[in-house]
Amino acid sequence: MSEVLLDAEAVSRAIRRMASEIVEATKGGAALALVGVRRGGVELTEKLREAIAAQEGRVVPTGLVDIALYRDDAATALPDPKIGPSVVPFHPEGMDVVLVDDVLQTGRTVRAAIDCLLDHGRPRRVWLAVLLDRGGRELPVAADFVGRRVEVPEGARVHVSFGEDPKATLEIARSV
Amino acid sequence: MSEVLLDAEAVSRAIRRMASEIVEATKGGAALALVGVRRGGVELTEKLREAIAAQEGRVVPTGLVDIALYRDDAATALPDPKIGPSVVPFHPEGMDVVLVDDVLQTGRTVRAAIDCLLDHGRPRRVWLAVLLDRGGRELPVAADFVGRRVEVPEGARVHVSFGEDPKATLEIARSV
Repeated sequence: MSEVLLDAEAVSRAIRRMASEIVEATKGGAALALVGVRRGGVELTEKLREAIAAQEGRVVPTGLVDIALYRDDAATALPDPKIGPSVVPFHPEGMDVVLVDDVLQTGRTVRAAIDCLLDHGRPRRVWLAVLLDRGGRELPVAADFVGRRVEVPEGARVHVSFGEDPKATLEIARSV
Repeated sequence: MSEVLLDAEAVSRAIRRMASEIVEATKGGAALALVGVRRGGVELTEKLREAIAAQEGRVVPTGLVDIALYRDDAATALPDPKIGPSVVPFHPEGMDVVLVDDVLQTGRTVRAAIDCLLDHGRPRRVWLAVLLDRGGRELPVAADFVGRRVEVPEGARVHVSFGEDPKATLEIARSV
């Protein structure tokens, strides 16, 4: 059993709003880029880039970081054959970089993603965009752009998926 | 010229309130410890420990981290002869650790302090306590316990000092 927190239309709206907020917050500042956290943030990064392009008529550069090597349990975690490399095809030095992930919970992934990003250069500012902030923080991390905040009990699983239909976007369902 | 944001009495009150909040937030959880960030967080850590002892009749363990080696400009920063070593005289694995600093601005120091702390073990949760949140964030970091929030212009300097009088505590003054 699951409960839909955001249906496809609500997700599309949230992404358009987040794109507007990102543009407004970074306007007049440094050059803007989006960096998705593998693998949950990849699709959302693409959707945000499309939304910014539709609103502003400009295509912002995007990249991906893979945090496998930066996890605080890296020494004990099992190797994962599904992970890929980080791809940051621009020099983030001095830029406004928005890290993008689907779900924010403990903040440990974000910490690792920031470390990974800083190894590529020193951005002027690093922002954080997430589709769902589900609470349960274990590090003092906060998102700047949030699709929806819902306190989800620790054991419950949150499911984020793109539909088969190309018109569908993300759906978040909470197992209950 | 400077403007006093918090006089000694207001700082004492803020510290007592922060101590209460820390106790309440971590009650029933894991073992609690305070870790100050050198050098700004050292005195505040001691004051918080005293306030918790006065309120709860227990002495929580404290430590210090020095972030010199973890700064994101470590490669270019000049060596600083005033820095000392990190001293974490307990194993933070599984604990509730409150990082303590006097002023939160960009968040870069906090990022470095978290990395340094994680090198000592993996706490259950890392919290952040600061006397002053002056805005101007450059990383997605947020404090859990805050003495006072004031948006201070980027160029302005914030001065935190302990008075000569042993009864005086911290004073924050903003150059104007």
